[in-house]
Amino acid sequence: MSETRKRIVTATGELFRSQGFNGTSLKQVTEHADAPTGSIYHFFPGGKEELGAAVLRESGAAYQQLFELIADEAGDIVDAMPAFFNGAADALEETDFIDICPIGNIAREVASTHEPLREASVSVFAGWTEAIQTRLAAAGLDAAEAEALANTIIAAIEGGFMLARARRSTTDLRATGTHMQQLVAAALA
Amino acid sequence: MSETRKRIVTATGELFRSQGFNGTSLKQVTEHADAPTGSIYHFFPGGKEELGAAVLRESGAAYQQLFELIADEAGDIVDAMPAFFNGAADALEETDFIDICPIGNIAREVASTHEPLREASVSVFAGWTEAIQTRLAAAGLDAAEAEALANTIIAAIEGGFMLARARRSTTDLRATGTHMQQLVAAALA
Repeated sequence: MSETRKRIVTATGELFRSQGFNGTSLKQVTEHADAPTGSIYHFFPGGKEELGAAVLRESGAAYQQLFELIADEAGDIVDAMPAFFNGAADALEETDFIDICPIGNIAREVASTHEPLREASVSVFAGWTEAIQTRLAAAGLDAAEAEALANTIIAAIEGGFMLARARRSTTDLRATGTHMQQLVAAALA
Repeated sequence: MSETRKRIVTATGELFRSQGFNGTSLKQVTEHADAPTGSIYHFFPGGKEELGAAVLRESGAAYQQLFELIADEAGDIVDAMPAFFNGAADALEETDFIDICPIGNIAREVASTHEPLREASVSVFAGWTEAIQTRLAAAGLDAAEAEALANTIIAAIEGGFMLARARRSTTDLRATGTHMQQLVAAALA
């Protein structure tokens, strides 16, 4: 990947996190990325929407890799739950509650107005669902149950993330990880 | 409450839902509310932040009343869970997946940048937590457990809401309601 393209995507992700999609202009992106004017359209001929979709897909893939890593380390999907939620909680605390994940808020901001971005967020969520579902199914759940539970876990971490940032406290996010652990253990029992 | 003030708050809520806080200008609010220029500062001397905080508090209170109504109708807090999630799912479908709740996305958008709005969202979430916690405690949970579980339920509905809007499907949101019912039943057992 070109260094300039990478800088543009990183800068856009950072701006999205603090200002959202609508609050971010391409001029700000070029400045923040220290990229030549016009370079955005070189890499993203579809402009802001295409760039935004790339940011969602690339940060979504990074979070999925992080989940896989945490789940591998935890050893089983039951213990992966608190590890996953505590990892998100630690990251929030370490960054002083900066929004470390641009996907959830962009998804909410653009769901009714920017179809290509909505579609990009759907494909990110589908990847996450599949990653958790695969591990739940390997532990013994049938496919439909595994999918539904995977979605609840994603809903809980996204919503828990929002509450933690608003409250500037990770206590509830960690407790939600324990609740998800109980739910997964009960489903597998 | 003055009719003009009410029109301003309603119009701002609608604009926040489709464009977010940063994407909405006071000029758009005046036009959308059909309100005289200058009237925003008459009712909200603190400008956009004070107006935004009022929108959060007033829609937050309306959602809390709706929850109380659904919980009263369901009769107990276990059955209130699917009723609550299915009610949100029905509302999403009826409005063709418009963002019916401006609180979650504004909370994410402004958590690091607009302190008065972050505080307003925290007080809305505290009201919701207390409403659910009170019913969980009345059903037999101790206060700390009731509070933690109430927060997980709010996280799950906020995150589930985001997934449902992105996917334009309420299937997962309804399944999450069933998972929350299981979690509440297990906690009370």
